[in-house]
Amino acid sequence: MRKKSVEVCLTPAVYDTFKSDNAIVVVVDVLRATSAICTAFMNGVKKILPVATLEEAKAYKKKGYMVAAERDGIVREFADFGNSPFNFTPERVRDKEIVYSTTNGTNTIMMAAHSYQVLIGSYLNHGALVEHIIKEDRDLIILCAGWKRKFNLEDTLFAGALAEAVLQNKGFESICDSTLAAIDLWNIAKKDLIGYIDKVAQRHRLKKNKLDDVIGYCHTFDITKKIPVLKENYLVPVSG
Amino acid sequence: MRKKSVEVCLTPAVYDTFKSDNAIVVVVDVLRATSAICTAFMNGVKKILPVATLEEAKAYKKKGYMVAAERDGIVREFADFGNSPFNFTPERVRDKEIVYSTTNGTNTIMMAAHSYQVLIGSYLNHGALVEHIIKEDRDLIILCAGWKRKFNLEDTLFAGALAEAVLQNKGFESICDSTLAAIDLWNIAKKDLIGYIDKVAQRHRLKKNKLDDVIGYCHTFDITKKIPVLKENYLVPVSG
Repeated sequence: MRKKSVEVCLTPAVYDTFKSDNAIVVVVDVLRATSAICTAFMNGVKKILPVATLEEAKAYKKKGYMVAAERDGIVREFADFGNSPFNFTPERVRDKEIVYSTTNGTNTIMMAAHSYQVLIGSYLNHGALVEHIIKEDRDLIILCAGWKRKFNLEDTLFAGALAEAVLQNKGFESICDSTLAAIDLWNIAKKDLIGYIDKVAQRHRLKKNKLDDVIGYCHTFDITKKIPVLKENYLVPVSG
Repeated sequence: MRKKSVEVCLTPAVYDTFKSDNAIVVVVDVLRATSAICTAFMNGVKKILPVATLEEAKAYKKKGYMVAAERDGIVREFADFGNSPFNFTPERVRDKEIVYSTTNGTNTIMMAAHSYQVLIGSYLNHGALVEHIIKEDRDLIILCAGWKRKFNLEDTLFAGALAEAVLQNKGFESICDSTLAAIDLWNIAKKDLIGYIDKVAQRHRLKKNKLDDVIGYCHTFDITKKIPVLKENYLVPVSG
């Protein structure tokens, strides 16, 4: 039987060269969108509607929805809250429906909507993701949200951590240079992950706006088993 | 005084996010276009006209030009020869004008034509490049040709080797995650460069077509001082 492929797409700008209707796509935006989404599901949110533009988010707010929205890390004035995982507390999100728009993460999610299954990945649900992907036994594309179409390190490192774990299973194989690069970078960084993250550009952007309190949290393995999945434009728990 | 920036653009697909009219752009296609071009100048070629399409290359052939042209590693039937550096011998190229078209390299060169200066980079002229870049004292973009808009490892490694050497000079600073990643990957690979290259996709593509005899040669440091530069659509030696 053919082995399933594991590919890493380093930025949404080249996603068209990976695109497959039959693959599972894991969207990664470690700092902070996909870490925030995993946190929201851990804390009992019912569903999340990712929207690409601020205009859409604003329109939903007018209709009475709870809206999380940021650009360049800064919460937008019309929104209920922004992009920090710490905003998605149980008190605030349990059994709620939330509309969500971020700089890079949410439009990257919508970009993959055509595929077999779109999952939301972060360190927080790494182990559950690996288990699910191996069970599904399909080609895998790990799609890094990056920063405004550019490569970023923090998403690439997580892609390496996920790819390496999935490739432990003999039914999968790496078929592209970006997977090899992500795994090599992960193996450098993992020895001192937070120390390594200190040099990435997004860390400096967050620090400038006093938003870097989430760095440690967003790099914590396996605090939830929840896997958000895209179903008819909404994110819901994979088992839900 | 402001430090000059060093950036690595991992694939032509995101070059629009780097573009600067005032920067020096070094185009890198280690296997094999930029190694072949450096070899041609080392062996005395007068000038090279890089053309993006096979149609253009064919039209020049009809006009009587000497034409090197390949796609996916294979020399095209109408061309005089293909993309191996070993084709560009002194007997064949000295004082000649050559028209050249390749899968990834030549259109990447034309893409950067708007910038202050477009240089052709490879291991073969690494030391001369570093010296020239430091003397010019301008922002630097290292543009990897990649493979059909995708990331590749061999160009990224060279970008890391070049960025690291330029950054030894205190007048330059790294301003993007892709530069950091390229340098880290280079530092893994350099311990056993040919061994590392063994795993890259392009090595397997070349091997399949029995074209991998160039791997060692294309990863040899400093066998020429010649730096090809784009001037009015032609590549000529920087000093010429």
